[in-house]
Amino acid sequence: MKKHNFCAGPCILPQSVFEQAAEAVRDFNGKGLSILEISHRSEAFQEVLHDARKLLKELMQLNDEFTVLFLQGGASLQFAMVPYNFAKAGDRPAYLDSGRWANNAILEAEKLCKPNVVASSAKDNYTYIPKDYLIDSSAPYFHCTSNNTIYGTQMKSFPKTNVPLVCDMSSDILSREIDFNQFGLIYAGAQKNIGAAGATIVAVREDMLQINPEREMLSYLDYRVHKAKDSCFNTSPVFAIYTAYLNLLWLKEQGGVSAIEKINNQKAALLYQEIDRNPLFKGVAAEEDRSNMNVTFVLNDTALSEKFAQICKEAGVEALKGHRSVGGYRASLYNALPLESVQVLVDCMKHLEQKA
Amino acid sequence: MKKHNFCAGPCILPQSVFEQAAEAVRDFNGKGLSILEISHRSEAFQEVLHDARKLLKELMQLNDEFTVLFLQGGASLQFAMVPYNFAKAGDRPAYLDSGRWANNAILEAEKLCKPNVVASSAKDNYTYIPKDYLIDSSAPYFHCTSNNTIYGTQMKSFPKTNVPLVCDMSSDILSREIDFNQFGLIYAGAQKNIGAAGATIVAVREDMLQINPEREMLSYLDYRVHKAKDSCFNTSPVFAIYTAYLNLLWLKEQGGVSAIEKINNQKAALLYQEIDRNPLFKGVAAEEDRSNMNVTFVLNDTALSEKFAQICKEAGVEALKGHRSVGGYRASLYNALPLESVQVLVDCMKHLEQKA
Repeated sequence: MKKHNFCAGPCILPQSVFEQAAEAVRDFNGKGLSILEISHRSEAFQEVLHDARKLLKELMQLNDEFTVLFLQGGASLQFAMVPYNFAKAGDRPAYLDSGRWANNAILEAEKLCKPNVVASSAKDNYTYIPKDYLIDSSAPYFHCTSNNTIYGTQMKSFPKTNVPLVCDMSSDILSREIDFNQFGLIYAGAQKNIGAAGATIVAVREDMLQINPEREMLSYLDYRVHKAKDSCFNTSPVFAIYTAYLNLLWLKEQGGVSAIEKINNQKAALLYQEIDRNPLFKGVAAEEDRSNMNVTFVLNDTALSEKFAQICKEAGVEALKGHRSVGGYRASLYNALPLESVQVLVDCMKHLEQKA
Repeated sequence: MKKHNFCAGPCILPQSVFEQAAEAVRDFNGKGLSILEISHRSEAFQEVLHDARKLLKELMQLNDEFTVLFLQGGASLQFAMVPYNFAKAGDRPAYLDSGRWANNAILEAEKLCKPNVVASSAKDNYTYIPKDYLIDSSAPYFHCTSNNTIYGTQMKSFPKTNVPLVCDMSSDILSREIDFNQFGLIYAGAQKNIGAAGATIVAVREDMLQINPEREMLSYLDYRVHKAKDSCFNTSPVFAIYTAYLNLLWLKEQGGVSAIEKINNQKAALLYQEIDRNPLFKGVAAEEDRSNMNVTFVLNDTALSEKFAQICKEAGVEALKGHRSVGGYRASLYNALPLESVQVLVDCMKHLEQKA
């Protein structure tokens, strides 16, 4: 039976990417070797790395001031690396507290400097994106999370400020047109719209690398080291980067970010429409902040949850369970999820309504 | 044509592991989903993680005082994490300088404490393992590198001391029987004898986690955080860990470490015998310190190198080039490399002798 995978991450990738990645594990480009047994310094892999970087810059329309790095450690290591590279001990970088991961970024920064939380929606369990805050011009940077995977909220715009913008885009990078050049640094765990788990993408503007955080820098935590070594400071996660390359190529073939955004908008509209129409369901996030990537909703009557689970299971709907801090359901509609899968989910919701 | 892959890492894995890993990318255990699209928190992956950890402990015969962690960032991040977790700013951990990577570990430690280099073979381009050094009992730990990939040297024994032993075993873990319980912490990048690039293995003894390095700990760099979160502090490199699981299972099926050691000894003996016999070649490493994993050798007459390259190419011998700091040749004989491949290389050397 065909599965419809709504997992929040690691998540669905295009079927063609799975096929190509599997083939490369068997035999990489007909070389008689697996992608898993070639050196990260081999010409063949250096070409993949180069092309992946080029594709990412092209898809994000990043200007030449940006360097793209492929690292490890996920967004969680970036929570530490950002203040480690850009804030001195007494500095007060500005942080927007819009969710669990945004908050974890703040907790890491507190170990290195004096983060200033300009606004927070924690008291309302992060159901909305805080707005109308001030960013002090003395802040070395402003950190925000473009999409809050757990709560299903998404920033629709970013503040205009002279302070460099740093953004965790792990769960909505490449899903919509944004002027990516407005940021000083963008980071994202690969395991949603970039590729497989095990790589982390960092796009950093040259002027950010001139900041002196006045600390003895551990090599792995130093963006400048990774830049100087062209993302090969140490052994690269070869397969994760290769999968990212395949997936970025797929996105380009679909027409890039603007084309996928149209489909993402259709998918989200279809599901939110049903949530709003169907009297059994209710959305979780504030309407104006609804995410097009992670749609959170609940049953008004939880007594129906078993019946709904059964209907979903029979339809091949996978990984719809909401995060434990929100409950209910979370449908993740990442780039590779086809519109058809959303239709199947909507049909399940209608089906429950008929049966209830 | 069949390839004989002598790459120093990422390196050859068993063909059956490639086949199983490729199949899992297509369809993981017949679930209708790829291994790349399942959550690291799913039951299916948690089982893989649990089994991989159990297999590693079993193959290394680690006692219950040890915790096995699956991290990211490679040995290079461990160079920083070891002093970060175990040394206060004024502490003088002991380090053995036996090669480039050992030296990089020292350079990272210098940023955090006052490493004491007890012995070094740097002046002789690391062609031997320094011996007869003293480890001060006030050192919080002694750090060494069991196998020096670049130079082809290997520690045949480890010092008897009350100071906890910390060992980088990236390039010879699971290749030979060692009392792994004599160490306080063992780490290894996965991309040689463990599995694919993208995971790092840490086996740490409980008493080491009681050390207080008296610093504000960044979460990703804190072993205790990873232990508390069962290696799922953040998104795991799912595929890299799955590949490690498959490879550990393969090793168990071969009869474990003692069985593979016998074959590794045969492979190394076959090649060193030819290097010593064949008048055209010369070994690089001191005889008593010769590595069974990475065999370094040179042509006495470099004018023959093109001819040798041609012979090797025709035989399907891959990735034999030595590291630029040593030159010549390096044949990596990791666990998955069959004896047959070593025979093919030896035949190439004999062939050159006949032609020369």
